[in-house]
Amino acid sequence: MTRFALTIEFDGRPFMGWQRQDHGPSVQQALEDAAHEVTGEDVLFHAAGRTDAGVHAQAMRAHCEVEKDFTPFRLMEAINARVRPNPVAVLDCEMVPDDWHARFSCVGRSYEYRIVNRRAPLTFEQGLAWRVIQPLDEAAMQEAANHLIGRHDFTTFRSAHCQADSPLRTLDRLEVRREDERVYVVAEARSFLHHQVRSMVGCLKLVGEGKWSPQDVADALAARERQALGFNAPPDGLYFTGAKYL
Amino acid sequence: MTRFALTIEFDGRPFMGWQRQDHGPSVQQALEDAAHEVTGEDVLFHAAGRTDAGVHAQAMRAHCEVEKDFTPFRLMEAINARVRPNPVAVLDCEMVPDDWHARFSCVGRSYEYRIVNRRAPLTFEQGLAWRVIQPLDEAAMQEAANHLIGRHDFTTFRSAHCQADSPLRTLDRLEVRREDERVYVVAEARSFLHHQVRSMVGCLKLVGEGKWSPQDVADALAARERQALGFNAPPDGLYFTGAKYL
Repeated sequence: MTRFALTIEFDGRPFMGWQRQDHGPSVQQALEDAAHEVTGEDVLFHAAGRTDAGVHAQAMRAHCEVEKDFTPFRLMEAINARVRPNPVAVLDCEMVPDDWHARFSCVGRSYEYRIVNRRAPLTFEQGLAWRVIQPLDEAAMQEAANHLIGRHDFTTFRSAHCQADSPLRTLDRLEVRREDERVYVVAEARSFLHHQVRSMVGCLKLVGEGKWSPQDVADALAARERQALGFNAPPDGLYFTGAKYL
Repeated sequence: MTRFALTIEFDGRPFMGWQRQDHGPSVQQALEDAAHEVTGEDVLFHAAGRTDAGVHAQAMRAHCEVEKDFTPFRLMEAINARVRPNPVAVLDCEMVPDDWHARFSCVGRSYEYRIVNRRAPLTFEQGLAWRVIQPLDEAAMQEAANHLIGRHDFTTFRSAHCQADSPLRTLDRLEVRREDERVYVVAEARSFLHHQVRSMVGCLKLVGEGKWSPQDVADALAARERQALGFNAPPDGLYFTGAKYL
């Protein structure tokens, strides 16, 4: 068996999320079906993170094992040919040691959230960004974001379905930047709670609109209860952008 | 009657082009149907340029006339509400004098062509960019582009169906720039011949791949015949990005 690490880009719109599901299409299934066609084997894919329905990836990392003899390049090309017309592409593929695990070896994950801050409806980016009509004050959003950086109990920003053992997480980076009508929020941590990024962006948006103060976000964090939360940003604007390994 | 000038963004993928057609959906029809629902009037839209099937616009300019009393803001909002789910959005709307014409008053048009220069298939940008696998030398492309700037007989870069009186055009700008895996070609002129931008980009791509030299492009231009052309770039990567008025 040879273990391969892959970098995967996908448009999350048609999928129920990364993970294989009974009730709808998933990125994992699209890749596993393609790999099965290519190899004749039952190939399992493990990803650095599970993404929700409608969430995208610019550079998800995953691994799989194949018995037949493939170079990384040939495996990548063959999967890319078979995975169509699904909007999934393998950008990179390399051999890794048998103990390398896309999820358990991962020591850092990054996301980017894309807001289009304008009145007009989206055209190219329907389902690929969150349109926010009210003008956003990105400086206030950054001030609020600064309260969230560091090691905290993120219970406020955690889905009721989160399966993590602990609500403690260390948020290494939460950066807000504007480029014309676009506002980006970049988040980095070793790992995130379920819905954490979308919850944080939902609160930052309230601050950007002037409905919350930066201090309200600090208070919501300190409250450590789900009821203190503003609301979740929609999945549309969320992109998994990278995973780090030692 | 009040004349309105509108700035329009559209995703060209589902359309046969800007212009109303019997055999398929068009941007013009989507807008005229929406404006009819809003006003009860037969509203005609005139654009700065006609785009081909599959070509996009970030900022097409158009005008229309409405008899009923509308503020520009209300007209824009009402059209945006009714034009859905078509991927068309009015970004801006203003009143203009009765002799202002989106096409005939226009003194400059600009396009951007988007190439994704990589091996992997496209996901988010299927139909929104041209994927070119062979690594492109953007410096050679710019050198070739420089031969096309200025006033020339562009017969070589003109569709057989072009209806313009003269093949003479003045190309004010043709700029190639790379941002990571993306290569952009920006073109500006008072007006363009039919297929001129796609023909020029098709030749520049051959130069980028090393199949043509920059001088080959100069020679093709000088030949003034369609047979000297490389080939047209696909519509997918072409965006109408702006129209100038005095």
